[in-house]
Formats: sequence, structure tokens, C-alpha cells
Amino acid sequence: MSILFAAPDMDAGAWRARLADQAPDHAVALLGEPFDPSVVRYVLSWRHPDGALKELPNLRVVFSLGAGVDHLIADPGLPDVPVVRVVGPELRDRMSEWVVMHALIHLRQLRRYERQQRERQWSDDETQPKASDVQVGVLGLGVLGADAAKKLRAVGFSVSGWSTTPKLLDGVRSFHGEEGLRTMLSEADILVALLPLTATTRGMLNAALIRRLKQGGPLGGPVLINAGRGGLQVEADIVAALDRGVLRGASLDVFEREPLPALSPLWSHPCVYVSPHNAAISEPGAIVAGVVRQIEAFERGDGLQNVVDRVREY
Amino acid sequence: MSILFAAPDMDAGAWRARLADQAPDHAVALLGEPFDPSVVRYVLSWRHPDGALKELPNLRVVFSLGAGVDHLIADPGLPDVPVVRVVGPELRDRMSEWVVMHALIHLRQLRRYERQQRERQWSDDETQPKASDVQVGVLGLGVLGADAAKKLRAVGFSVSGWSTTPKLLDGVRSFHGEEGLRTMLSEADILVALLPLTATTRGMLNAALIRRLKQGGPLGGPVLINAGRGGLQVEADIVAALDRGVLRGASLDVFEREPLPALSPLWSHPCVYVSPHNAAISEPGAIVAGVVRQIEAFERGDGLQNVVDRVREY
Ligand SMILES: NC(=O)c1ccc[n+]([C@@H]2O[C@H](COP(=O)([O-])OP(=O)(O)OC[C@H]3O[C@@H](n4cnc5c(N)ncnc54)[C@H](OP(=O)(O)O)[C@@H]3O)[C@@H](O)[C@H]2O)c1
Ligand SMILES: NC(=O)c1ccc[n+]([C@@H]2O[C@H](COP(=O)([O-])OP(=O)(O)OC[C@H]3O[C@@H](n4cnc5c(N)ncnc54)[C@H](OP(=O)(O)O)[C@@H]3O)[C@@H](O)[C@H]2O)c1
Repeated sequence: MSILFAAPDMDAGAWRARLADQAPDHAVALLGEPFDPSVVRYVLSWRHPDGALKELPNLRVVFSLGAGVDHLIADPGLPDVPVVRVVGPELRDRMSEWVVMHALIHLRQLRRYERQQRERQWSDDETQPKASDVQVGVLGLGVLGADAAKKLRAVGFSVSGWSTTPKLLDGVRSFHGEEGLRTMLSEADILVALLPLTATTRGMLNAALIRRLKQGGPLGGPVLINAGRGGLQVEADIVAALDRGVLRGASLDVFEREPLPALSPLWSHPCVYVSPHNAAISEPGAIVAGVVRQIEAFERGDGLQNVVDRVREY
Repeated sequence: MSILFAAPDMDAGAWRARLADQAPDHAVALLGEPFDPSVVRYVLSWRHPDGALKELPNLRVVFSLGAGVDHLIADPGLPDVPVVRVVGPELRDRMSEWVVMHALIHLRQLRRYERQQRERQWSDDETQPKASDVQVGVLGLGVLGADAAKKLRAVGFSVSGWSTTPKLLDGVRSFHGEEGLRTMLSEADILVALLPLTATTRGMLNAALIRRLKQGGPLGGPVLINAGRGGLQVEADIVAALDRGVLRGASLDVFEREPLPALSPLWSHPCVYVSPHNAAISEPGAIVAGVVRQIEAFERGDGLQNVVDRVREY
């Protein structure tokens, strides 16, 4: 019942301690250190090197240490075993905090009022639109998108959403398909991306999509919020649209390359918020607890939860 | 059926146009211009000069142009007629947008991440507490406080509230009285003030109250959010508490003197957000519509809504 920890960027010592604590009966091996491949039944992975999981004859399940599995699917040598991702109320709630905060920040023009504060200027000549006059379109209505949509609605926004299959969400207009996307984009003042990165979604936040967003509107132009994956966006197109005023603002938690390179114009664009891929962080302890619970259930012969569809890629 | 417009700081021409538009049958006089006092039945006031409404023999109702009436009650010559204040979904929803945004900003350490962005620094070593681990105490559970409490809860915060009389609000721990205040303060990580300014509440956000707030806690110390009235707060005490780290941060929309004087240390305090008393702005058109509706109902013999208790002062 050995576990292989395959997350080269993470603090292996700390994760090993957590595993020792919560799963004392399991031997834990680290990718990069010597181990007997035949004892490995479970892998915990975050961006393991391509092919690193190829020669594990008794591998049963690969657990992603995050909600997204694009880093796993990208490995052409990924063994044909179930891939399980992280799903949980903590991750979900943290994401919605971040999304609602950024939607409100753009609604209430925080940057403008912070600038005035630095200049000790007391002024409120511009009228501020109210949330109900602002349409937020959410790309992706899965675990994260559906919760963000619900909470955006709770603070007063008008909300619509788009997914592969039609959804029934209280107070949220649901769209799907190409035609649905076109309509949603043409009505959105704020576009929130909470899609997984797949062959279909890669690069979709590009110049062509931005052109289809509603122009003008109560915020003076559309705002893009992306906390899905950096690979969804074409940063050169986003910067160009911001420069030309076609996009009014953006809040980005994810980037084509992470860490965001020091030379990226996004860092210093006046209408952009950059955060270091921390919109939704789960406590490592909670992730380990979830994995251990699933391993124990699986060993008892129960089914796995949150298994990814390898064809859809999410 | 004359209306007297008594708001020296406001754009009289624009308000007169709105009144002419929505109440064409009423003559509108302006305080400061000649008019026949005996024809005035209604006053629309915002900070009229003390005593200015004394000699109006046929005055029936005074309408405040805002939700607060401290500016009216302060006038020792205020005639003994009903005082009506502004209550409406727009004002309420705008206030909750502002309160929820600022609670999330402190929760998610926005200032820190904005500083990192300016420095092109990608880093997330500190763990961020989650909303459910953060207790928000709301002072005042009236029209505004109750809505803010509900929406703070909807985005995940643990919420309690304090008012004169006990309340039953879904998922919100309700406190009242001195003993209730003590308990709520000792547990609050974020304190939100949405109280009216009265003889009882004046100056209550002072050193003594700040000392009773929970120290430490998930945010590293308590945060104060005040959008009630500037007269609730003792700014010297707040600045001293911020300087000593007893208060961790503050978001203030209202001040002892407005506009906030250029020399106030609040403008430049690293943990303070200043906004120009615009947390909740109603459209003047909506205010006029509400007043005109009430005047017409009153003329038909119906009762008035949102009448203030002159003894409680709110
Ligand atoms: N920034 C961060 O800190 C952070 C943290 C966690 C997760 N994430 C990202 O957030 C993503 C979403 O997470 P989740 O848990 O909500 O995933 P999920 O439950 O699998 O939901 C994905 C949603 O996207 C929709 N979708 C997928 N492909 C689509 C397409 N081509 N066209 C239209 N809709 C499509 C799905 O539609 P159906 O419902 O119809 O299938 C579903 O509604 C993750 O994949 C991850 O990349 C980021
Ligand atoms: N910054 C802005 O832009 C802005 C805009 C609008 C309003 N405001 C301010 O917000 C204030 C509140 O508005 P509102 O419409 O919510 O007023 P409200 O409906 O009259 O509610 C006032 C609340 O405060 C409570 N309260 C009053 N005195 C108290 C005391 N001594 N101890 C404990 N609780 C006390 C009341 O308790 P009970 O319910 O038990 O009576 C009530 O819950 C206004 O007075 C105004 O000053 C500011």
C-alpha cells in the first residue's frame, strides 16, 4: 500500500510528515529518491515530469493535488488508471471569496478611490453603477463556477453562466454551446473564467472572444476575471485589448507562465490585478485527509469520487 | 402644497428639475430665495441651517434626503412634525456591496498583494484565513445592518450582530445590551458599524471599545469598518490603535469632519481605506420619487412610512 509523492515543486518533507501523520500504515516514497516501483499503488502528483509514472506495475490511482488535472493529462505517458482531483468546500469557498471580491472591486472602482486616497482627494462626481445593473457571465458552471455564480447573485449582481451541458441554477441564466456563448458574451459586463484547461478551452480568452464582449455598458467596458488556468488566456491579446480600452480591466490569478515573468506588462497595467495563483488554496492537511479517506475506501472495495473523464479532460 | 428644498450643499437646480418632473403640481421653493412661508407644507432637507424651518406655520412633514437624520435632530429649532428618512432597496444594496467588498479585502489581504504586484513579486508564503474562520460583528441590525449581515454570511463569514432590541436573523448570532456588546466585541475579528448617530452612539468607536475587541485572531488583529456616521468614531483613538497595532486595519467611509481634512493621518495610513462618504448612494431620482409618493399618500390621508422616533433619534 505504498504512496508515491510526485510533486517536485512542493515541500516534500512537509507533505511526507502530513502523510505519516494521517496515513501511518502507508509507506511513502518520494519521486527522485530510490524506491521499489512494484510497491506503489497510489500516486499523489502535482506537475510530475512527463513519463515519471510509466513503470509502476501495481499503480491503482493517481491523485491530483489540485482541482485541475491539466498538468496530468498533459503527460503522454500517464498510465491508464483512474485520475482523481481535489474537490471540497474549502477550495470552493476560497475561490468564491476571490471572485466576489474582484467583481465588487471593479464594480465599485476601488483603484480610482485608492488613487484619490493617495492624493488626499475627496471627490465622488462619477455615479457608480449598482450590482444589479451589471451582468456577470461565468464561463464554467462546475463545482467552482456554480458556487461563484450563486454568491455573485447573493451580493446583487445579475448572473449568467455557460457550460457544456445546460444547468438549472436558481436566479442564474444558463447558456451552453456556441450559440449560448455568443449571447452570454454579448451581454456580459464582467466575464469570469472558471473553466478547466482542455484541448477545447486552451487559448479561448483571446482577441476573438474579447471582440464579442459587450462594449460600453455600466462599467465603461468589459472586465475579465480569470482564476481557471493561465492556458485559457492569450496574454498578448489581453494586454492589447486593455491598451486599446476594449477591455476595461482584469483580475488574473493564473498566467501562461507561472510565476508571471518580471517583464510582463500585466504587472504594471493600471487596470489589472495580479495575484500569485492563490485564489483558492486548500490546506495541505485537508487535501491529505481527502486522499487518505479515498484510499481507505478504495482498499475496502468502495468506488472513487471526483474521478476525471480522460476523454473530456476534466 | 408647496415644497421647500433646504439642502444648501446640494445642486438646487438639478433637484428642482427632478421635483418639477415628478411632482409638477407642487410649487417648489428654495431656502435662501424669497418664498411665502405660509404655503410650505413639506420640507426636503439635507443639513439645513439650524432654525431655518422654525417659521413655517403650515409645515406637515420634514423629509431627510438621506437615511440618517442626525443632521435634522441636531437642529434645536426643528419643528414638531413627523421626520421621514430615506429607506430603499437601492441604498441598502449599495451599502452591502461596499461592506462585503471591504470585509473581503481585509480577509484576502489585498493591500499586501497590490504591493507585491507593484514590486513584480510572485509570492504566497503566508496562509490566508478562510471567511468561515473570521467572525464579523455588525453594530446595528436595522435596514442596512441586517442586509449586510445576510450578505456577509452568504459569502462565507461567521456573522454576529448587535442592536437595541433582540433580532432573529438566519445564521446570525444576535446580541443586545451592554453585556451582549461585550461578548460580541470580544469575539469579533472584523467590526462593522452601521449604527445611526445618536446621543447614545456618539463617539462609541473609541479607545475603550477598541480595547475590548479580540486581539490576535486569524487576521492578526481586529479590523474596523465604519459606514454609519463619522460622529460614531474618535479618529485620534483609531489612529493611535492602528499605530500601536491594536487595530490591524480599517475601512472608513465617514469621518468626524467631511471632507476629511487634508492633514488627517488616515489618508496615508498603510492599513486604512478611505472613501468619500459614498458607500451607499441613492439616485436622486429615486429619492424624489419616494418623497413624492409619500406626499401624495399623505395628502390622500394615508399614513407616512419610515418615520423617525424623535426620542430614540433614529
Ligand atoms: N486559481 C486557482 O487557485 C484554482 C483553484 C482550483 C481550481 N482552479 C481551476 O478551476 C477549474 C474548474 O474547477 P471546477 O472544480 O469547477 O471544475 P468542474 O467541476 O469540472 O467544472 C468545470 C466546468 O466547466 C465546464 N466546461 C468544461 N469544458 C467546457 C467547454 N469546452 N465548454 C463549456 N463549458 C465547459 C463544465 O461543463 P459541464 O458542467 O457541462 O461538464 C463545468 O461546468 C479547474 O479545472 C482548475 O483549472 C483554479
Ligand atoms: N455611509 C453612507 O453612505 C450611509 C448611507 C446610508 C445610511 N448611513 C448610516 O447608516 C445608519 C443606519 O441606517 P439604517 O437604515 O440601517 O437605520 P435603522 O434601520 O434605523 O437601524 C439602526 C440600527 O441600529 C440599532 N441601534 C440604534 N441605536 C442603538 C444603540 N444605542 N445600541 C444598539 N443598537 C442601536 C437599531 O436597533 P433596533 O433595531 O433594536 O432599533 C437598529 O438595528 C443611518 O443612521 C446612517 O447614519 C450611511
